[in-house]
Amino acid sequence: MTSNATRCRPKYTVALTLCALLLGGVRAHAQTDPLPSWNDGPAKKAIIDFVQTTTDQSNPKFVPPEARIAAFDQDGTTWVEQPMYTQVIYCLEQVHVLAEKKPELKNLEPFKTVLSGNREAMAKFTMKDLEKILAATLTGMTVEEFNAGVKSWLAAAKDHRFKHLYTELTYQPMLEVMKLFRDHGYKTCFVTGGGQDFVRVYSEQVYGVPPEQVVGTAGATQFGYDKSGKPILTKVPKLLLNDDKAGKPEGIHLMIGRRPVAAFGNSIGDKQMLEYTGAGDGARLMLLVHHDDAEREYAYGPKSKVGTFTDALMAEAKSKGWIVVSMKNDWKRIFAFEQ
Amino acid sequence: MTSNATRCRPKYTVALTLCALLLGGVRAHAQTDPLPSWNDGPAKKAIIDFVQTTTDQSNPKFVPPEARIAAFDQDGTTWVEQPMYTQVIYCLEQVHVLAEKKPELKNLEPFKTVLSGNREAMAKFTMKDLEKILAATLTGMTVEEFNAGVKSWLAAAKDHRFKHLYTELTYQPMLEVMKLFRDHGYKTCFVTGGGQDFVRVYSEQVYGVPPEQVVGTAGATQFGYDKSGKPILTKVPKLLLNDDKAGKPEGIHLMIGRRPVAAFGNSIGDKQMLEYTGAGDGARLMLLVHHDDAEREYAYGPKSKVGTFTDALMAEAKSKGWIVVSMKNDWKRIFAFEQ
Repeated sequence: MTSNATRCRPKYTVALTLCALLLGGVRAHAQTDPLPSWNDGPAKKAIIDFVQTTTDQSNPKFVPPEARIAAFDQDGTTWVEQPMYTQVIYCLEQVHVLAEKKPELKNLEPFKTVLSGNREAMAKFTMKDLEKILAATLTGMTVEEFNAGVKSWLAAAKDHRFKHLYTELTYQPMLEVMKLFRDHGYKTCFVTGGGQDFVRVYSEQVYGVPPEQVVGTAGATQFGYDKSGKPILTKVPKLLLNDDKAGKPEGIHLMIGRRPVAAFGNSIGDKQMLEYTGAGDGARLMLLVHHDDAEREYAYGPKSKVGTFTDALMAEAKSKGWIVVSMKNDWKRIFAFEQ
Repeated sequence: MTSNATRCRPKYTVALTLCALLLGGVRAHAQTDPLPSWNDGPAKKAIIDFVQTTTDQSNPKFVPPEARIAAFDQDGTTWVEQPMYTQVIYCLEQVHVLAEKKPELKNLEPFKTVLSGNREAMAKFTMKDLEKILAATLTGMTVEEFNAGVKSWLAAAKDHRFKHLYTELTYQPMLEVMKLFRDHGYKTCFVTGGGQDFVRVYSEQVYGVPPEQVVGTAGATQFGYDKSGKPILTKVPKLLLNDDKAGKPEGIHLMIGRRPVAAFGNSIGDKQMLEYTGAGDGARLMLLVHHDDAEREYAYGPKSKVGTFTDALMAEAKSKGWIVVSMKNDWKRIFAFEQ
């Protein structure tokens, strides 16, 4: 053994050295690639180039630190939005919690249908039905009570297909993009059609986006005092901002007050935000995530109920130089739990 | 001369050394005092103590970086609000600009009275009159046009009493407080009854507060396209947030999404913001600036049209441990231009 081992040593050493060099090389490459979950291609290159040129003081496309605002849609852009928006699932499930406290709901539509679990009937809900459900489950409590309810639901509820927490259904490639932008002095903001208060509950922990950088569909609150005289804010059913389509640039102006230099979306709901972002001076980056991967996630086209991506949107993207990301081809992996 | 000089040297050297030590000491003291425009006293001590304890990880009152939100009222708290809010002066002066473009206003009330310059008549304006003036001068243009108008006005218009630009009428002691908080990782936010869009034009340059950290009374914008097809946002006369009194905590929730740990105001318009801030857990700092210095600035009491400070507010401040700052006694100087 000893002599064998001794005889083998030179080769062994060479192999080890080669391994070390190779491993070292791989590690060094991994460290320098800010988007490891992206396949090499024009989309990945455009994102990295944009961040590098806009933060290089010697580049004519340099963007001063205070102007570095990057706006991200959430549903369908940074996490899964099928088969329903996560917040809608939350509201439907909250009806069961609510019915325990208010048994009179059990015989009242649309709550009766929700409690029956009849999905076909629920799919036929009108906008008015949905509004009743949203009002009942999103208002009438203090902001702290609402936050606690969402937090505890998110800690346990799982997606039926992927068997993972909803907060684990974030797109790893987009988390990498958000981090890359932040690492270069950008403020990453959400501009979502989802409820502002809902998204704020987890945005900091899940995405690194603090509540004050979340713009979303927003209802009013009402200041008052509880029985002990403590000041409270109660959520009330009054819509202040419908943060979708034209409401997105309007929401950006209301909550952020300056035009982003980069905007990320995935549907016709993001069209105006991308147009508004693109209409500013200097360097601009507009990007649409295209859901074309039925195997690993979903593939949905112009007729989808959520995340509609029309041919006209694709044509506008091409004519204006917006990046269209193919989830199938551009993303090496979609979820962090995949490997 | 030579012998004299030689004889004198030892004493001279001692004197120089003493001077150097003294000067060095003074300089060292000035460098370490973060609030040089404040007289020593309980208010100054409380502010410095609060910032130190809440950012000292070993202190039980430590506040984690992400929760460090400090809210500042603007008019009367960080700059002069007498004899009228600066924005109201802007709107009244804009009526003259507007009348050049729309001559029909010259015979239409309340514009006719504004154009006449009759201050007594203007003092009798009803809320409806004022609303007409605000709507005419704050809406109907793109956000860029509005910003450019405010910017050019602020670059030239001067306060009648102090003969300085309005942006120079900031309180030096409060600028020092804002910087002290920022230097310790706090986000300094404005929560002002003034127009959000108006304040955002100068807040970054004058106060170091970026537009996205300005919460104020906010009107809606409307997304659309100009004749060339370029996306634009037009300011429209629809009130989204009246950021005064109960509207302040409501505005904080809408725009920031978390409760501040420190709040600074000067009137009954700030009462609910201070109450809401004070109702949170952990370390809290609430402060009211009291205008009691008619000689250097203004002294105004419970009957003032702007910045009303009632006896009830003073009583609440005392009972709840809010700091009440006497401009006369606590502030060494008020404006940067004083020396």
